[in-house]
Amino acid sequence: MVAINCDMGEAYGIYRCGDDEAIIPYLDMANVACGFHASDPSVMQRTVRLAKRHGVAVGAHPSYPDLQGFGRRAMSMDPEELTAAVIYQAGALSGFLAAEGMELAYIKVHGALYGQAARDRDVAAAVAAAADALDTPLMGMANTAHEEVWGDRPQGFYAEYYTDLEYRPDGSLIITREHTAVDPEVAATGAVRAVTENVAVANDGSEIPMRADVVCVHSDTPGAVELAAAVRAALNPYLS
Amino acid sequence: MVAINCDMGEAYGIYRCGDDEAIIPYLDMANVACGFHASDPSVMQRTVRLAKRHGVAVGAHPSYPDLQGFGRRAMSMDPEELTAAVIYQAGALSGFLAAEGMELAYIKVHGALYGQAARDRDVAAAVAAAADALDTPLMGMANTAHEEVWGDRPQGFYAEYYTDLEYRPDGSLIITREHTAVDPEVAATGAVRAVTENVAVANDGSEIPMRADVVCVHSDTPGAVELAAAVRAALNPYLS
Amino acid sequence: MVAINCDMGEAYGIYRCGDDEAIIPYLDMANVACGFHASDPSVMQRTVRLAKRHGVAVGAHPSYPDLQGFGRRAMSMDPEELTAAVIYQAGALSGFLAAEGMELAYIKVHGALYGQAARDRDVAAAVAAAADALDTPLMGMANTAHEEVWGDRPQGFYAEYYTDLEYRPDGSLIITREHTAVDPEVAATGAVRAVTENVAVANDGSEIPMRADVVCVHSDTPGAVELAAAVRAALNPYLS
Amino acid sequence: MVAINCDMGEAYGIYRCGDDEAIIPYLDMANVACGFHASDPSVMQRTVRLAKRHGVAVGAHPSYPDLQGFGRRAMSMDPEELTAAVIYQAGALSGFLAAEGMELAYIKVHGALYGQAARDRDVAAAVAAAADALDTPLMGMANTAHEEVWGDRPQGFYAEYYTDLEYRPDGSLIITREHTAVDPEVAATGAVRAVTENVAVANDGSEIPMRADVVCVHSDTPGAVELAAAVRAALNPYLS
Repeated sequence: MVAINCDMGEAYGIYRCGDDEAIIPYLDMANVACGFHASDPSVMQRTVRLAKRHGVAVGAHPSYPDLQGFGRRAMSMDPEELTAAVIYQAGALSGFLAAEGMELAYIKVHGALYGQAARDRDVAAAVAAAADALDTPLMGMANTAHEEVWGDRPQGFYAEYYTDLEYRPDGSLIITREHTAVDPEVAATGAVRAVTENVAVANDGSEIPMRADVVCVHSDTPGAVELAAAVRAALNPYLS
Repeated sequence: MVAINCDMGEAYGIYRCGDDEAIIPYLDMANVACGFHASDPSVMQRTVRLAKRHGVAVGAHPSYPDLQGFGRRAMSMDPEELTAAVIYQAGALSGFLAAEGMELAYIKVHGALYGQAARDRDVAAAVAAAADALDTPLMGMANTAHEEVWGDRPQGFYAEYYTDLEYRPDGSLIITREHTAVDPEVAATGAVRAVTENVAVANDGSEIPMRADVVCVHSDTPGAVELAAAVRAALNPYLS
Repeated sequence: MVAINCDMGEAYGIYRCGDDEAIIPYLDMANVACGFHASDPSVMQRTVRLAKRHGVAVGAHPSYPDLQGFGRRAMSMDPEELTAAVIYQAGALSGFLAAEGMELAYIKVHGALYGQAARDRDVAAAVAAAADALDTPLMGMANTAHEEVWGDRPQGFYAEYYTDLEYRPDGSLIITREHTAVDPEVAATGAVRAVTENVAVANDGSEIPMRADVVCVHSDTPGAVELAAAVRAALNPYLS
Repeated sequence: MVAINCDMGEAYGIYRCGDDEAIIPYLDMANVACGFHASDPSVMQRTVRLAKRHGVAVGAHPSYPDLQGFGRRAMSMDPEELTAAVIYQAGALSGFLAAEGMELAYIKVHGALYGQAARDRDVAAAVAAAADALDTPLMGMANTAHEEVWGDRPQGFYAEYYTDLEYRPDGSLIITREHTAVDPEVAATGAVRAVTENVAVANDGSEIPMRADVVCVHSDTPGAVELAAAVRAALNPYLS
C-alpha cells in the first residue's frame, strides 16, 4: 500500500513550472505550493480544482518566504515565526479546499525547509507544531530529525522516497535549484526497491535504508510525465 | 443590538500599527489583516490569540496585494484573481483560528478594496464570490454595490458605520492613507445616531441615511483607545 | 534611421520568459525589466552582460510594483511615489550598467504603466519627472499624453511602434497578459510601413497615424525570434 | 579624524522607524536602507533629500531580501546572487542620489548580512565584489572576514564601532531584532575609547581591540537622539 505524490501548482503569475495537467493522472497526492516559494492564489485555486477533478488528495507544500530563490535557500527564522509561516500557508490552501468541499490531507514542507527539517531538530519541531495545530499528518523523510521530532503523533507521518533526486551515502537528499532528467526505468526500479525492500541506492552506488510509504516525482524534472507514468506502472501492484 | 469592530493585527515585522492590546477590551469583533496590506503570520497568530483571550469574534480583513501602500491603492485585478486573493487571505487567517479552536466570523475587505467594492459591481461580485465560497458573512457599507451584489444570501451582511472617518454627501467614505484624530464625544454621538436613527452627518453638514448593524473604530487613528472607550460607553444600551 | 528594441530580462528566479540569447542578435536596444514586474538582481546582471556582448544599448523597463500580475494591472499610485518607484528601478539597473562600464540609454515603462502614461497626464508627468531627474530619454507612443507631457525636453523621446500587438482605431494599444503569435511577414510589413509611411493598420483594418523612431518586438511572443529576424531583415535599409 | 554614521530611511510605507529628522543633525554619514529589509522608493527619496539638506554623506545599506525579518535573518544565498542583490540595492539608492546631484559614498551592509560578512569569507567576498564593481568604499568591522577579504583595495574600508550594541569577548557583535536603550554617557565614553584607545568593553567586562574610523548609532534604539547628541558632543574634538 503506497501512493505517488508530486509537488504541484508551482507556477506563478504568467510563469509556468511543470505540466500539472499532464502529470496528474499518474498521482494519488498533490503537494500544492502555497505562495511563499511559488504559486499565487489563482494558481492554487486552479490546482485544487484540477486535483478534485482527478480524485487526487491535496497536501500543503509550504516553504520559507523566498519566491526569488524558489524556497531553495535556507533562512534563520525563529521557530515560532516558522510555525506561524507554515500555518499561514497551509491555512491559505485550506481556504481553496474548503471552497471545493475538500480537506487538507497533510503537510509536506518544501525545498530548503524540507532539508532543514530533516537535519535540525528546532526546525523539525517548528514544522511539527504547525501540523499539530492544524491536526494533519506530515510527509517527510524517514530516519531524520523531521520524523523523530514528530514521533508517533496520531495524525501520522508519511515517509517518502524521491524517484528523481540523488541521495548521499548518509541518506541525505541532494536538493538542487533546478532538477535534472532521470531515466524513467531507473526511477521506476528505484521506487519499487524502496517500497518493497526499503533500500535506495546512493550516489556512490552504496545501498542505504529507505522506508517509503509514498514516493515522489517532481513536475519540473525534465521528462516528468514519462517518469511519473513509468513509476506508476511499476508500482501498480503495490498501490492501494 | 449592535457590535463594535476594529481593524487589528496591522503591524508588520518590527513595525507597529495601533495598540491592539489597549483597544481590544472595547471591541466585539476584530477584523484581522491577512498579510497583503499589513500583518504577517506571526502578527496574525498573536492577534488571533489576543482576540480569543478577550472573547472577541474574528473576521478576515483582506486587501489588494499592496504592502507598501497599506492596501490603499486600487488595482485593476481580474474578478477571478480577486476572488482567489480574498479566499487565500481568509483561508490563511482561518488556519490560525483553527489552531485556536475558533471559526472565521465574517469577511470585511480593506482600504481601496473596500471602496472599490462599494462602487464597482464587478469588484463587489468578486468579493461576494469569496465569502460565498467560504460560507461566511460579509461586512461593508449599506446601500452600496457591495451590499446590493451580496443581496440576501443566507450568511448575512453586517452594515457598518465608521466612527472616525468622514462621509461625503453622497454617502461615500473618504479613505485616507493615514487617519486623523477625531473628538471621542463627536464620534460617540455619531455612532449612537447611526445605530438609533440610521443617519450620519456628512462632511458638508448634511444628514445622510446610514444603516448600522456594527460600528467601526480604527486602531491607528490617533487617540483610538479613548475613542473606542467613548463609543462603547455611548453604545452600551444597544450592545447585544 | 530606426532601431529595434525588445523587452528583456523578464525571467524571475527559476522561471523563464522569452529566449533573450536567441533574440538579441536582432536588436539595437534592450528594455531590461527592473524587478517590479519581472526580473531579479541576478537576471538583470546577466541581461546587462548579454547586451554588452552584443553591443546592444540598455534602457530601463520599470513597472508598477506587481510581480504577480507581470505589471499588467493598473495601480492608483500617487504621482510622487510613482516617480520614486521609477527612479528606484532605473537606478537599480544603472548599478549593473555602471559595473559593466555602460550607461542607461533611456527609460521605457512597462505594461499597465505604459498604458496609463499614454492616457493619463498625471501618470505621464510622474514618469517624465523620473526620466528628467535621471537625465535620460523616454521611449513611448507618439501622440499620447506620454509624449505630450514630456514635450521637447532635450533628452528626447523615442516614439515606438509595436510589431506584435494590435492597435485600436483610436491609436491605443491592446495590452494582454500573454502575447499571441503574429505572422512574421505581416509584422515586418507593418514595421516598414510605420517607419516609412508613418501609418499602422488598426484591428478593424483602418489606417491610423503612427510615428516610429523605434520598433518593438516582445521576447515572450510565440515565435519571437523568427519575428525579430523578419522585422530586422525588412527594416535593414532603414537601420542606422 | 572620525565620523558618526547612522542607519536611516528604515521606515516602510505607513510604518515609521526611528526619527531621522531629529537625529540627522548629529551625523556625518547616513546609511540608507534600500528596500530589501526596510525602506521603499518614497522613503529613500525623502531620506536622500534630508541628508542633502544637512550636508550628510549617503552610503547604501543593503540587506538580504527579508522585509518581514528586517534583514535580521541569515539566508543561504549563492555568492553571485548576493553580489547582484547588493549592486541592485546600491544602484537603486544611487538613482536618488543622482537625482539630487550626489554620489554614493560607501556601502555598509545590514543586519544578518553584516554579521555573515564578518564571519564568512564567501559572504564577505560577495559583498566586496559588489563594492568593487561600483567602485565605492566598504564600511564594516575591523579584524573580521569582511575587512580581510576586502584587503587594501584603493576605495578603502571604514572600520566602525557600535555605540549602542554589545560585543562578545571574541569581538563579535550581538545583533538583536529590536534594539534596547543604552545610557548615553556610557555610549559616549565607549565611543571615545574606541576612537582614541582602539579598545571596546565586551559584555563580560573584558577589553577587546576595536579600531574605529567611524562610530555608529541606530535611529531605532530607544533614546537614539539623546544618545547621538551625547556621542557627538564627546567625539567633538576628534571629528574631522
